[in-house]
Amino acid sequence: MGNSFGNIFKLTTFGESHGSSIGGVIDGCPSGLKIDLNFIQNELDRRRPGQSNITTQRKEADQVELLSGIFEGVTTGSPIGFIISNNNSNSRDYDNLKDVYRPSHADYTYQEKYGWRDHRGGGRSSARETACRVVGGAIAKQILKQKNIEILGFVFSVGNIFANEKLIDFSKITKIRDSNMVRCPDEKSATKMIDLIKDLKAKGNSVGGQIKCIMKGVPAGLGEPVFDKLQADLSKAMLSINAVKGFEYGSGFDGSKMFGSDHNDEFIATPDGVATVSNFSGGIQGGLSNGEEIYFKVAFKPVATILTSQKSIDNQNNNIEIKVSGRHDPCVVPRAVPIVESMAAMVIVDHLLRNRTTRL
Amino acid sequence: MGNSFGNIFKLTTFGESHGSSIGGVIDGCPSGLKIDLNFIQNELDRRRPGQSNITTQRKEADQVELLSGIFEGVTTGSPIGFIISNNNSNSRDYDNLKDVYRPSHADYTYQEKYGWRDHRGGGRSSARETACRVVGGAIAKQILKQKNIEILGFVFSVGNIFANEKLIDFSKITKIRDSNMVRCPDEKSATKMIDLIKDLKAKGNSVGGQIKCIMKGVPAGLGEPVFDKLQADLSKAMLSINAVKGFEYGSGFDGSKMFGSDHNDEFIATPDGVATVSNFSGGIQGGLSNGEEIYFKVAFKPVATILTSQKSIDNQNNNIEIKVSGRHDPCVVPRAVPIVESMAAMVIVDHLLRNRTTRL
Amino acid sequence: MGNSFGNIFKLTTFGESHGSSIGGVIDGCPSGLKIDLNFIQNELDRRRPGQSNITTQRKEADQVELLSGIFEGVTTGSPIGFIISNNNSNSRDYDNLKDVYRPSHADYTYQEKYGWRDHRGGGRSSARETACRVVGGAIAKQILKQKNIEILGFVFSVGNIFANEKLIDFSKITKIRDSNMVRCPDEKSATKMIDLIKDLKAKGNSVGGQIKCIMKGVPAGLGEPVFDKLQADLSKAMLSINAVKGFEYGSGFDGSKMFGSDHNDEFIATPDGVATVSNFSGGIQGGLSNGEEIYFKVAFKPVATILTSQKSIDNQNNNIEIKVSGRHDPCVVPRAVPIVESMAAMVIVDHLLRNRTTRL
Amino acid sequence: MGNSFGNIFKLTTFGESHGSSIGGVIDGCPSGLKIDLNFIQNELDRRRPGQSNITTQRKEADQVELLSGIFEGVTTGSPIGFIISNNNSNSRDYDNLKDVYRPSHADYTYQEKYGWRDHRGGGRSSARETACRVVGGAIAKQILKQKNIEILGFVFSVGNIFANEKLIDFSKITKIRDSNMVRCPDEKSATKMIDLIKDLKAKGNSVGGQIKCIMKGVPAGLGEPVFDKLQADLSKAMLSINAVKGFEYGSGFDGSKMFGSDHNDEFIATPDGVATVSNFSGGIQGGLSNGEEIYFKVAFKPVATILTSQKSIDNQNNNIEIKVSGRHDPCVVPRAVPIVESMAAMVIVDHLLRNRTTRL
Repeated sequence: MGNSFGNIFKLTTFGESHGSSIGGVIDGCPSGLKIDLNFIQNELDRRRPGQSNITTQRKEADQVELLSGIFEGVTTGSPIGFIISNNNSNSRDYDNLKDVYRPSHADYTYQEKYGWRDHRGGGRSSARETACRVVGGAIAKQILKQKNIEILGFVFSVGNIFANEKLIDFSKITKIRDSNMVRCPDEKSATKMIDLIKDLKAKGNSVGGQIKCIMKGVPAGLGEPVFDKLQADLSKAMLSINAVKGFEYGSGFDGSKMFGSDHNDEFIATPDGVATVSNFSGGIQGGLSNGEEIYFKVAFKPVATILTSQKSIDNQNNNIEIKVSGRHDPCVVPRAVPIVESMAAMVIVDHLLRNRTTRL
Repeated sequence: MGNSFGNIFKLTTFGESHGSSIGGVIDGCPSGLKIDLNFIQNELDRRRPGQSNITTQRKEADQVELLSGIFEGVTTGSPIGFIISNNNSNSRDYDNLKDVYRPSHADYTYQEKYGWRDHRGGGRSSARETACRVVGGAIAKQILKQKNIEILGFVFSVGNIFANEKLIDFSKITKIRDSNMVRCPDEKSATKMIDLIKDLKAKGNSVGGQIKCIMKGVPAGLGEPVFDKLQADLSKAMLSINAVKGFEYGSGFDGSKMFGSDHNDEFIATPDGVATVSNFSGGIQGGLSNGEEIYFKVAFKPVATILTSQKSIDNQNNNIEIKVSGRHDPCVVPRAVPIVESMAAMVIVDHLLRNRTTRL
Repeated sequence: MGNSFGNIFKLTTFGESHGSSIGGVIDGCPSGLKIDLNFIQNELDRRRPGQSNITTQRKEADQVELLSGIFEGVTTGSPIGFIISNNNSNSRDYDNLKDVYRPSHADYTYQEKYGWRDHRGGGRSSARETACRVVGGAIAKQILKQKNIEILGFVFSVGNIFANEKLIDFSKITKIRDSNMVRCPDEKSATKMIDLIKDLKAKGNSVGGQIKCIMKGVPAGLGEPVFDKLQADLSKAMLSINAVKGFEYGSGFDGSKMFGSDHNDEFIATPDGVATVSNFSGGIQGGLSNGEEIYFKVAFKPVATILTSQKSIDNQNNNIEIKVSGRHDPCVVPRAVPIVESMAAMVIVDHLLRNRTTRL
Repeated sequence: MGNSFGNIFKLTTFGESHGSSIGGVIDGCPSGLKIDLNFIQNELDRRRPGQSNITTQRKEADQVELLSGIFEGVTTGSPIGFIISNNNSNSRDYDNLKDVYRPSHADYTYQEKYGWRDHRGGGRSSARETACRVVGGAIAKQILKQKNIEILGFVFSVGNIFANEKLIDFSKITKIRDSNMVRCPDEKSATKMIDLIKDLKAKGNSVGGQIKCIMKGVPAGLGEPVFDKLQADLSKAMLSINAVKGFEYGSGFDGSKMFGSDHNDEFIATPDGVATVSNFSGGIQGGLSNGEEIYFKVAFKPVATILTSQKSIDNQNNNIEIKVSGRHDPCVVPRAVPIVESMAAMVIVDHLLRNRTTRL
């Protein structure tokens, strides 16, 4: 269970890292959308392994094949099925992991839950699954483009190196965000981040980081006020991504330290309509978008695959020493940017569609 | 839409702060549970306004009436309907708010979404709705008690005053957490928090805070691995609570600054079974509980109702000055502890039930 | 589980026949609908027991109280909670049924499923629950009225007495259908039906019957093409009503005997738009409405409560003789007309709203 | 929307008759099930076109490829993705249908709903989609086999030719049902049915029919009592199949003509447990299975594709004459037997799993 996301625009995914392919079904995509295949592939390329020398060197073309729901380049309203082949999966690499549990991986919990486990490359727990989210997100983004809604994610921190937002020209961020391999638009910090990641890669270690995401042009009124508040659905979307440990929007955890007199966002009437003077609300009030920029941060832990020796146990409950070798991703956040954006895009499209049913 | 929570154990709520009553329906509660009505009422009392002199002085008895689903004190498997009367709602207090939008409230966004708004006391957007969540949570907790699962929330911070966890004896937390009115088990910090809140109350200002929640005894294997990861559902549950700005579990945002070699939780075989040496994972790996303590933090913003004059607009887009008078909650976190626990309890019960369908 | 109906316009109900009240929540009702309370009550009156001398003499006022979601007479988009008090429930009437299973009732199956049973008046299995559906339906009908969609149910047969549809002036059916107490607009057949029911009432026996329902003005394109075909959702809606044994739409079971050359509905262009020459399709093609009249029939079994002695068992598996006394409904179909209409109305409203998300 | 079926055991499908492939995802299949691939293929073969000379001669191998969710032959609890290639789809056959609406097909309604249509072979509205249901059903049946539940469908009628159930030895039906190409276990009637179908095939005409389905070994207590009654979910499942016009279970429409004194099923205690003397209830009481045989009938209309000339319109609203040529299925019921069984099997598995959450 739990392999579907969304209420109206709904993505269902399947596939393990070492099966023949992964894939999914997008149900509820409106008819009449001209599909830009290159854009989808480009988004997948932003996520795929081996894209730069600070990511894992595992090579996957991640070529998506759309199987249905599109006729003469335009969506028909029928579900869009798709698959992405697994090419570079050498299952034998994982033979030595069959009977042991890697620390901070899902090996142990899967075994406990299901009593049966595809140990090859993490099976279903592999972040390879997120490629399917990027396909869903890339289609959602094409809907958003029609509505002049833009979603911009970038790397905000790697370890203790934080971007200086004052140095970022957000009007140029669309181009800038992918201008360097770590996807941080503050070039100075980006250089430090890249150096740190390279160093950790050489050492077989890993490091965490944060992604910030900004959504521009979201109209007021999106979200459902009680349990499906816009921030609630965004938060679930983010925490469903592998390695994510936290989510905050608007003033976030810092907001918990503030006084109401400083935190409240005063309204102001402008020639262009209603605006707020500050935006500690993060563009959402009472669970509903208010037309201001929506922004949030997502915290990623250091990936669990490291190449140093660790203590662990096997499936007979014996204490063992484990050492994983081979390719690894020293820091997941550069590749996670399109995943964060994709999940956010699907949330917004879902609520755009839900919102159409609000008024008589 | 969006007034239901949960997949199998599902709570649906209704009601505005100034209608005749609020209430809800709990569907999917298993049959055979002996219901302790006093416990439910006690939980509601932990949330209700007017419970101490650091909360709003609005008085509500918050007496719950269970209308169905229980026969001779035991659940029948049929839905449990309930209502809580609204007694202390003086709608005329809000007449002056009919045509204006309070800063950082839901007034403006509701108007934009629905084109029609019950302005009295925030209507559906009022945190009064959370009383129904506490009813659902109080029943969920009774199920968890049968499974020896305990959920303990406490106030971790108010403004910049943080509890010192080293001073907290968690084995005694059940009693301790409500031993003071701010629900912080570090007595020294609690005193400071209370002083701060009293000061802000006098000034008509408000302050944010954080709640930490610990879940003990959750068996390994709960959660659904992809979109309904246990942390994803917990996160959505928390962000659906009024005034919440952030969620983190395990190492959280701090984890994003760490190296994998420090963050990984090594497994160790013990006479009592599998354990981890550290618990940066926060008791969840690959979206599934691993049997360790689950812990998370929730950040609350300062409540928007403050008694000082603020700039805002009316519904004709005129810039105005607004000043709210009357009763207010200077800091929401002490009363929010049972809400956080309730939402967490419902998530765990839901996943306990979902998990029964996992294996052949 | 299973106490909610609908995807967007969603009704959740609770309550047993002998609790203090029954009730429900309507989530997803659009904002801006002026609610006509008299109409809702009038619909409940069409269903309530004791309305004529061919129904059970159990008296229930069935006064509905709307608790939320409406402000100054207009829906706000928030959930509409409601309760209906149970007044005439004498639980002691059922003391002798505590340990026995009545034939063709739900006593045995509830006991097997839940291991615990509210035996008073059938508990949750009582058709009293359908009053809540009529509330949902009465609100749905007010939405449909705005869209010029009309739903007309009438009694098509009682036992072997069938209405002669040629004698019915369907342009007058709105008035006619309730012009007699059996709700059959063919007056001649109606008289025979009434006589039969009176005779069976005197004998303590019961009889089945069929309801036909016609929907006029449904626009083309409602329904979702694969699993949520319009007829599939209508069928589920009908089979969820107590005592229903069958559903057919358009040509129905008779259609299974026909040849394609006779059954196909040829299209014809008319000044008013597209029409079909015949309507064996029943207004639905490929799961989607085509703009023609939608019509279907629903078969009800004779109600299981009869006053003659029957063989059965007790909960210790002893063969016993059972004799129920008191009030009973000799034929359920006259009272079931508003229930059928209500379920149909909710299906159409739900699909009207779903359909808004179809196109870009 | 509407391309998913089931609550816990959930099938999502995609694909048009003339895309590269159709396929689906089964989510919620329990782990630990040994998958018999031959059985799945065999079930597909029972449905596939070209299997005998009374079906369409369109040839499709209907080879299913399972892509995920199975490791070393056993289900892992992860979603099972699958595809079936479309081989024999000659899209040019349909060029002449691009701008016209075939009578009683879904051409017109799809165009009205979506404003855009894949006209090739009916696109998504093609019954080709049901192959994916058979994959889901074939896996569901393997679960049912473990629980000793058997689902047996057979052709009950073709046009006006009805099977004589007295002549059928139901203890042998598993073998018998597929012993002839029309899948009617009354051999005498089967011969007549086959002759009729051959005659209609030669004439380019079509005929309807009925399928009866029997479920043995379903334990008492399955179903959810109000909206998700077992018969309600079965009914929806059946009416979601292309060409189905009606559903009845137990006494069905005939039951509407009966008296309660004849219709009630008296309970009797037997050495093997509780039984009923008659079974007009069709194995379901109060929406829950009672342990007796569940049986129901499904009515199919004559398929709309006939080879004679018909009046219709084009998409410019001109009256036209239309004549379809090529391959067609003169009677759909023989091929529909595995589809009916598959949908029934998925309903039962879903309720088996849901039922696990009923009691504390």
